[in-house]
Amino acid sequence: MECAGRLPRLRPLVAAAGADSLLVTTLPNVRYLTGFSGSAGLLLVTGDETLLVTDGRYRTQAAEQLDAAGLARSVDLVVGGVQVQRDAIAAVASRRGSRVGLEAENVTWGSQRRWAETLPAAELVATAGVVEGLRLVKDAGEVDRIAAAAAIADAALGEVLEMLGDGRTEVEVALALDTAMRRLGSADRAFETIVASGPNAAKPHARPTQRPIGAGDPVVIDFGATFDGYRSDMTRTFCVGGSPGPELTRVFAAVSEAQAAGVAAVGPGVAGGDIDKVCRDRIAQSGWAEAFEHGTGHGVGLDIHEAPAVAPGSTAILTPGVVVTVEPGIYLAGVGGVRIEDTVVVTDQGCRPLTAFTKEIAA
Amino acid sequence: MECAGRLPRLRPLVAAAGADSLLVTTLPNVRYLTGFSGSAGLLLVTGDETLLVTDGRYRTQAAEQLDAAGLARSVDLVVGGVQVQRDAIAAVASRRGSRVGLEAENVTWGSQRRWAETLPAAELVATAGVVEGLRLVKDAGEVDRIAAAAAIADAALGEVLEMLGDGRTEVEVALALDTAMRRLGSADRAFETIVASGPNAAKPHARPTQRPIGAGDPVVIDFGATFDGYRSDMTRTFCVGGSPGPELTRVFAAVSEAQAAGVAAVGPGVAGGDIDKVCRDRIAQSGWAEAFEHGTGHGVGLDIHEAPAVAPGSTAILTPGVVVTVEPGIYLAGVGGVRIEDTVVVTDQGCRPLTAFTKEIAA
Repeated sequence: MECAGRLPRLRPLVAAAGADSLLVTTLPNVRYLTGFSGSAGLLLVTGDETLLVTDGRYRTQAAEQLDAAGLARSVDLVVGGVQVQRDAIAAVASRRGSRVGLEAENVTWGSQRRWAETLPAAELVATAGVVEGLRLVKDAGEVDRIAAAAAIADAALGEVLEMLGDGRTEVEVALALDTAMRRLGSADRAFETIVASGPNAAKPHARPTQRPIGAGDPVVIDFGATFDGYRSDMTRTFCVGGSPGPELTRVFAAVSEAQAAGVAAVGPGVAGGDIDKVCRDRIAQSGWAEAFEHGTGHGVGLDIHEAPAVAPGSTAILTPGVVVTVEPGIYLAGVGGVRIEDTVVVTDQGCRPLTAFTKEIAA
Repeated sequence: MECAGRLPRLRPLVAAAGADSLLVTTLPNVRYLTGFSGSAGLLLVTGDETLLVTDGRYRTQAAEQLDAAGLARSVDLVVGGVQVQRDAIAAVASRRGSRVGLEAENVTWGSQRRWAETLPAAELVATAGVVEGLRLVKDAGEVDRIAAAAAIADAALGEVLEMLGDGRTEVEVALALDTAMRRLGSADRAFETIVASGPNAAKPHARPTQRPIGAGDPVVIDFGATFDGYRSDMTRTFCVGGSPGPELTRVFAAVSEAQAAGVAAVGPGVAGGDIDKVCRDRIAQSGWAEAFEHGTGHGVGLDIHEAPAVAPGSTAILTPGVVVTVEPGIYLAGVGGVRIEDTVVVTDQGCRPLTAFTKEIAA
């Protein structure tokens, strides 16, 4: 993972956003640019200076992580309370130019008002997506980390799968999966694990309930692990200890085919909206157009949902190194549902799945 | 828990903040006022109308939770996409007056700018702490929920304690504790569990490491459960399978005494800063003033850290129903540390602890 090259690539983007400097407040962006992973910190990037400020809890960690990223000499570190931090930023931001970019989708209105008081000579510029634009294309180290998270999730699902035939509740299976991921090295689950069985499988964002999973129930399992800050995302739908019934069997086939077609369509030069259309058209051909009620996918990285959107109308063009999910589904109220999802990385030729677990419904 | 009475109590506070209406964007505030616990939603409170807007995922849940709170008739529910939501709010906010309060410590600058475009005739007013002021005093149902979370945490610690004498790592003990809390009914841990042993115990905000816990090591365990949205918070320091050594024995006695004195000082009419001073003075008398490097406590409820502060200079006056932590500590770099924490509810006479686990170091 090549942290040190990111700040030089950021600077022209800050200028293009109409700012002389950028105050980075979004923590995953601070981590992306410097390697610093603390829960509090601000990064100011000017034309030729970089300043990281944080509080006393992170004095040692921040210095170590800057050093590990090869930034110990080029990033100034200031550690102290709120006033020390603001003074340090004011000293650099007021010296270097009057247009200070804030990350408007992250900084609160209250915070923006305080920065306006702290930097009275500056013009605060609302920016959006500047660092996120850089994060879109993952380098090899980032892809390795997402793949490591995906491998943990695959292994955890392998351990837990036998519970499905055992009358356990959704809550019990979700807890076993989360526990297995942590035991296998995941710092935390990547998001709240979904285990949705029977009619609950008809809700795309179901939360686990005390419902015992019955023989022949469809069970949608949507979950991910984290590794060194990076996340994975995978959904499988199983049906254990019985047959899924004729309608769900057809639904499963339709989703499987649409998902495979979506993955096959991922490649450089393709727009996010195009992938979505491939999946949506296939499902429409099966007669369930209305039952596919969400977008096809999203980017994955330091955040579980990041750019690009893989959804109707998305004009974001995929390039090698972009990591996205492909996750069509069909949901039939009162009956059940099926969703199948892989996380894939765009390559020079097409894409490579990072999630590997079997897609057999009777696994 | 008496949700329905909260909106009438809020309205004069909105007026006192200089606004005709308040757009509530902080999700725990939305939940507090309406019972709605979804991950997306906005609440507009005018002088005589209340409007909850959310998206299609929460159509059923929002209606059910409003009904359960006795608000089905008095709160208008609008379900739809972003534009539908904005239009619904604009229709009411523009009709009812021009001063629309935003929660400035929650709403992003970008969002505030979009509201300014959506409501061109309105004056947006930056507010802070309006709903949080109501949340300060917990009703009986809220205290019951915090107590239920605390009871889950107590039971989980009882299950896991024997692992401490068994050579397990900090990560293993933390995972066992988190898993036990969820098995016992906690929706999730209340915050990232701290298990810090030996020299790691000298770091107040340590994260669990792969360090095996040795015989005689001090082990600081700081953790909490959640129950129906409400959180608990408790710290114990143990020393298992060996003696803590003379210095840590004295540290343990000093913290125990300071913590007991702090709890004894909690009562109606007392300021948060007074509780802090009681603990700080006791520790200073023991000669470790410099080694108590954080505030004494904080409020607990729907958030793990909320008002009031129990810290130097805090003028917040405690009243019956306020729930706070009392958690002094002494940290000796390279040696170890001790922190003891209870969550207590202020009563008419003094306070009642909600956390009950033994404070014996050799438990």
